[in-house]
Amino acid sequence: MNLPSYNPIALPELREMLAEGDHESLKSVLEELHPATIAEFSEGLDPQETWRLLEHAPVERQAEIFTYYPMAKQVELVQAGGRDRISRLLEEMPPDDRVDLLQELDEETVNELLPLIAKDERQDIRRLLSYEEDTAGSEMTTDYAWLPEDITVSESIHRLREQAPDSETIYYIYVVDKEGRLVGVVSLRDLILARPDAIIRDIMHRDPVAVKATDDREHVAQELAKYNLLAIPVVDDKYRLVGIVTYDDAMDVVIEEATEDALRMGAVGTLDESILDAPFATVWRKRAVWLSFLFIAELMTFAAMAHFKDAVDKVLALSFFVPLCISTGGLSGAQAATLITRAVALGHLQPRDWWRVTTHELAMGLVLGLSLGAIGFLQVAVTPSDWLGLEGHQRWLLAITVSTSVMFICMWGTLVGSLMPLIFQRFGIDPGYASSPFVATFVDVTGIVIFFTVARWILL
Amino acid sequence: MNLPSYNPIALPELREMLAEGDHESLKSVLEELHPATIAEFSEGLDPQETWRLLEHAPVERQAEIFTYYPMAKQVELVQAGGRDRISRLLEEMPPDDRVDLLQELDEETVNELLPLIAKDERQDIRRLLSYEEDTAGSEMTTDYAWLPEDITVSESIHRLREQAPDSETIYYIYVVDKEGRLVGVVSLRDLILARPDAIIRDIMHRDPVAVKATDDREHVAQELAKYNLLAIPVVDDKYRLVGIVTYDDAMDVVIEEATEDALRMGAVGTLDESILDAPFATVWRKRAVWLSFLFIAELMTFAAMAHFKDAVDKVLALSFFVPLCISTGGLSGAQAATLITRAVALGHLQPRDWWRVTTHELAMGLVLGLSLGAIGFLQVAVTPSDWLGLEGHQRWLLAITVSTSVMFICMWGTLVGSLMPLIFQRFGIDPGYASSPFVATFVDVTGIVIFFTVARWILL
Repeated sequence: MNLPSYNPIALPELREMLAEGDHESLKSVLEELHPATIAEFSEGLDPQETWRLLEHAPVERQAEIFTYYPMAKQVELVQAGGRDRISRLLEEMPPDDRVDLLQELDEETVNELLPLIAKDERQDIRRLLSYEEDTAGSEMTTDYAWLPEDITVSESIHRLREQAPDSETIYYIYVVDKEGRLVGVVSLRDLILARPDAIIRDIMHRDPVAVKATDDREHVAQELAKYNLLAIPVVDDKYRLVGIVTYDDAMDVVIEEATEDALRMGAVGTLDESILDAPFATVWRKRAVWLSFLFIAELMTFAAMAHFKDAVDKVLALSFFVPLCISTGGLSGAQAATLITRAVALGHLQPRDWWRVTTHELAMGLVLGLSLGAIGFLQVAVTPSDWLGLEGHQRWLLAITVSTSVMFICMWGTLVGSLMPLIFQRFGIDPGYASSPFVATFVDVTGIVIFFTVARWILL
Repeated sequence: MNLPSYNPIALPELREMLAEGDHESLKSVLEELHPATIAEFSEGLDPQETWRLLEHAPVERQAEIFTYYPMAKQVELVQAGGRDRISRLLEEMPPDDRVDLLQELDEETVNELLPLIAKDERQDIRRLLSYEEDTAGSEMTTDYAWLPEDITVSESIHRLREQAPDSETIYYIYVVDKEGRLVGVVSLRDLILARPDAIIRDIMHRDPVAVKATDDREHVAQELAKYNLLAIPVVDDKYRLVGIVTYDDAMDVVIEEATEDALRMGAVGTLDESILDAPFATVWRKRAVWLSFLFIAELMTFAAMAHFKDAVDKVLALSFFVPLCISTGGLSGAQAATLITRAVALGHLQPRDWWRVTTHELAMGLVLGLSLGAIGFLQVAVTPSDWLGLEGHQRWLLAITVSTSVMFICMWGTLVGSLMPLIFQRFGIDPGYASSPFVATFVDVTGIVIFFTVARWILL
């Protein structure tokens, strides 16, 4: 891995070099800058221009730069690249990045490319492709450093020199027995500090933390973060080492999952590209689908209101409090859902804690509802009678109606908001959906029903 | 750093060992398990019990375990620990974790502790404490590995053996000139692969990516993730190396910021502990403050409704559509705010892009609004006349009113939602607040005003 330096180059400069055929400058740009920097500055080039740039570097370097492009650009480059060029490039790419890319291509393209790739690499690809998306197996790389347990430290360092160019990290070296089972790990630091004639078995850490290939990638990232690891080994069901997930991929998982959570809360679905760069029609379609769906669900509020038409007809002022009742449910529900979803994501809560959550949140909803109910009561109390169109006795009944409904709605919102993430988790749905507008819509409708039911009972 | 192994121990077992005074078992637990595992399993002990457990390990080990406790538990342990014990512990803690802890203690306690700490460490603490919260300076550690540029590889490895026990990472070694300025970086991998008589200057990577001590910690995490670095050097305004931020701290920053964003969207404020473990009164106070504040803001909807009392009096059916109008603004606003906030967080958008965002989102709001308006029109069209209490001509005017308002409100929500994150960013407020219920409340009130204004104009 190159360590990056600050030598930015601007897109116009690059275009000029390409137009003038300034091969020397292009070569030195590709040689000297960090691959991430090259990818960043050449992202604006069209696929043909990008290839004319990349051609100035050896294929190993091309592969390094390639992995730093956004996925959409990678796919474009494959389509414009020609089969021979792409198959050579795939051979040089890190196994995990290569599989990520192949998963985005259509089956026909993959079937065209695979026969052109060297047999070893092809088998590696087939194996990695067989893991389900979002599992440890689909995120791992097979380029790891490993050692047998019965050699000396100096021999190990010699072997590492050979493995180094291909391994994603040589800072953790995994120790495997004759059957390929993971039995230990040593860090390069341990090796540097150990006596050269020490045996690996004696200096290694036994029973290292590992994840199964079928584990969820969020779990992998959590373990890595919890133990501050550079990489975590991935084993199959016989505890044989099959790959590693490195900290940088785990960091990407955390960032991607946070993005997904945020987009879900905003009811957007996923959007791979930057919002202004993505085609207008694509963005519109994605947004319109979610908005229309929620809007249609919200039409239920109209039906609920129409159902209680008589109540509004008798006391017009009731309708003034409908928005307040709706937002009480929405706000208290969103708050509870956020807290519980976050607790689930951080591993503090499991679905089996539902009863503790229920009692805790019912009590919490009650005391929160009492606070809000008191504010609601005050509001009615200080509002001039002619605004409400109600006199004396009736007015106090309205105040009681508003405060009682606000209290019940707050309890209801809190309870629904806190249990939804656990129920979703239980049935394998992402608990993040509980903070989303879907649940809010449900609470809106039920809020109206609670309000008018209380009104009928107290006021009418 | 120890590499963790799977050897869980349960809290009751620990308690039994403490009660029986089984010193041998306690010692071996503290020696053999990963510090993160020990911290996890002993988190449930009270401060006195925890100290009786930790006493069985040397102070260096105590410091390692200590940093894995949640901050609230660390503070409790300091209060129960006694000044001498704590000052020795602080001397052994990694500089960045130590400063994080001291920032949580009250000034009096800090002033009591500092004089007891060795002079070198005390100066280090004073310097790190002087950086503002959430900057690179406040996140960095001063235990980094470094080399001058004019020595050989074999001499470097010899020096690293001496620095290794104290350095947070020896995988990246920073090269500084005589004035302490950062001039390059080598990786341990480079050193292992280089000829032993090569000079550092010739094999190092020049002008490494670095961050300033005053840079925001989110920027630090972004740079580290972008370049897939294990650590990033931190320099002062004269480009002198003052510390490093390692990947595990950057990962924590990403996780913390995602949590903060989520809690903000749910209007909760920050909550350090798990929701069920935190004291009920604390959770209630935090939640009640936010909910009451938003509830009071939502009282504006009541005022808006009361203001348009005449309109509702004339056409009762108008009130049935108020919840729908409110949610249209809320949903379209949340969607736009989420997309733009995320684009800002990922570095795709800056405040100076406001004009592009405005035109893009006005157009988007229009086409989205047309879709929703059409659905709204249909709804009125298929609703039985007696539900609405309107006949013939009047009914079509209501359909036009609803669809027109929905369109305008959708445009308005989209525009407000998309511009708020940029305006907030411009004035140094976290753009995440734009997805929060504060903006939703604002859009709710304006939605009501738009609806009744359109109604007066078309229907009344």
